[in-house]
Amino acid sequence: MEFAKLHGLGNSYVYLNLLGDGGPSARGEGGQGSGGERPVPPGALDWAHLARAVSDRGTGIGSDGLILILPSQVADARMRIFNADGSEGEMCGNGIRGVGKVLYDRGLVRSRHVRVETLAGILALELFPEDGRVQRARVQMGRPILEPARIPARLGDGRAPVLEVRLEGEEAVVTPVSMGNPHAVLFVDDLAKAPVQEWGPRLEHHPAFPNRTNVEFVAVRDAATLQMRVWERGSGETQACGTGACAAAVAAHLTGRAGREVAVHLPGGILNVRWDDSDVVWLEGPVEEVCQGRLDVEWLRRRGLLRP
Amino acid sequence: MEFAKLHGLGNSYVYLNLLGDGGPSARGEGGQGSGGERPVPPGALDWAHLARAVSDRGTGIGSDGLILILPSQVADARMRIFNADGSEGEMCGNGIRGVGKVLYDRGLVRSRHVRVETLAGILALELFPEDGRVQRARVQMGRPILEPARIPARLGDGRAPVLEVRLEGEEAVVTPVSMGNPHAVLFVDDLAKAPVQEWGPRLEHHPAFPNRTNVEFVAVRDAATLQMRVWERGSGETQACGTGACAAAVAAHLTGRAGREVAVHLPGGILNVRWDDSDVVWLEGPVEEVCQGRLDVEWLRRRGLLRP
Repeated sequence: MEFAKLHGLGNSYVYLNLLGDGGPSARGEGGQGSGGERPVPPGALDWAHLARAVSDRGTGIGSDGLILILPSQVADARMRIFNADGSEGEMCGNGIRGVGKVLYDRGLVRSRHVRVETLAGILALELFPEDGRVQRARVQMGRPILEPARIPARLGDGRAPVLEVRLEGEEAVVTPVSMGNPHAVLFVDDLAKAPVQEWGPRLEHHPAFPNRTNVEFVAVRDAATLQMRVWERGSGETQACGTGACAAAVAAHLTGRAGREVAVHLPGGILNVRWDDSDVVWLEGPVEEVCQGRLDVEWLRRRGLLRP
Repeated sequence: MEFAKLHGLGNSYVYLNLLGDGGPSARGEGGQGSGGERPVPPGALDWAHLARAVSDRGTGIGSDGLILILPSQVADARMRIFNADGSEGEMCGNGIRGVGKVLYDRGLVRSRHVRVETLAGILALELFPEDGRVQRARVQMGRPILEPARIPARLGDGRAPVLEVRLEGEEAVVTPVSMGNPHAVLFVDDLAKAPVQEWGPRLEHHPAFPNRTNVEFVAVRDAATLQMRVWERGSGETQACGTGACAAAVAAHLTGRAGREVAVHLPGGILNVRWDDSDVVWLEGPVEEVCQGRLDVEWLRRRGLLRP
């Protein structure tokens, strides 16, 4: 089974091209695996299990999850994203840039403007290639969802942008925002002292968020600059989270802390977010390919991930 | 640049075959890379830099380090091992099983009995294949070194098998053992409560160990069964460490806690160690291949890891 590994600011995924016309290695040697295994039709595998297996640095490849690139009836391709714990995500702002890069670099699309179907809707990508290979990408992330019932977040009166959540005796004030997936943004004074490892998992599983939530810890440097650490639902603390950067920018503007255009500084690097006048959020950042490869047939078989 | 990733009990390495006659993908598609980069001659690269880059789960592949398989004048092959922090190790009991598997599975050796040159001497491997591919391997790890000066460990009177090390006011009693690389073995009652994250790095960098040290926390279940967690020099806590399992077995027998043959239970699985009557230690355990692949040319170039 052919794969590619790509990352955006250290937020890394294993990508499987299931479009059927070329593969992650179409450029190098043709999409047909030569390892003797059969091609895997979409839907044939337990993707949650495969995501857990490949994400493990010790016994797998090592990543924040698995992204499938699938045919779409309504866009250039469809992406499905599975986190390192096997749970399926709606979208990932770093991961979708890798989808654009795989499509463009392998010649599976010809235009710099690509549309990708996700569980968070159809999203437009603008790709910035050099010498035929994408280096950066801008993603139209759609409109933020702020009504608690649609995030979903259970507490609050449905109007205020902030929410008080009880955490074992302490009160955390969060701004819930959905960018297709749920986020809880906390503003802190000192990012180094932010209780990411403690509050991250507690907020992720808090009953206020029936579909669980990503958690952003944000320090405002100035009206155009945020610093952020992120706890990703299903993955734990990561180097960067694209939808999280968007949620942080929206929350910072909503609560009067920043303008509509900010640079978000994450441990993995910088993402640029703009919330435009028509309510659409844009995310721009780098994307890099690490390697292409083929999962070992015995490794797959031992985990029940190949048909006998 | 072609690579393979293999692991022994979750102790994983990226392998480069620099023998020149076939490669990690020789079985599948011939050893010649088709990505347009030039073959890399041994010694041409900054291996420490490459080891750090590939080991990073976010921006690289994700591993405990890098292992080079090189030609040898005195054995079937020579291995060099670089930890995730770029430091070069003498040997790794899990990593060397992967060397045997790459050599045998690719047809680079024909015998089940292989000799590998390491910084810890020439070591014999016995390979256990099924259907032409190695599943388990036994390694002749050589004689343990117990004289403090040769481990090297600076304290003690040069005779006692235990050493008291001062750690910020606390006294830790360790048994220093070299298996070609230095180890400090601590016996504990409750492995779950062992201060691996705290004492591991302090002992690693303690002045008593001029070349730094690996650190093993060991609970004795019975005279034939040890439980262990390991802090690896240069890598931090890992799922398993082959030389560490040997050092633990030697220390347990030396201090009257166990017999000469023990099963060592690690977070990643079980290793079998035998310290025979001629003073030689044998280590037996599983080895699995995860994937074969090719590092992206731009990724290498951006890190200064390809000639222009």
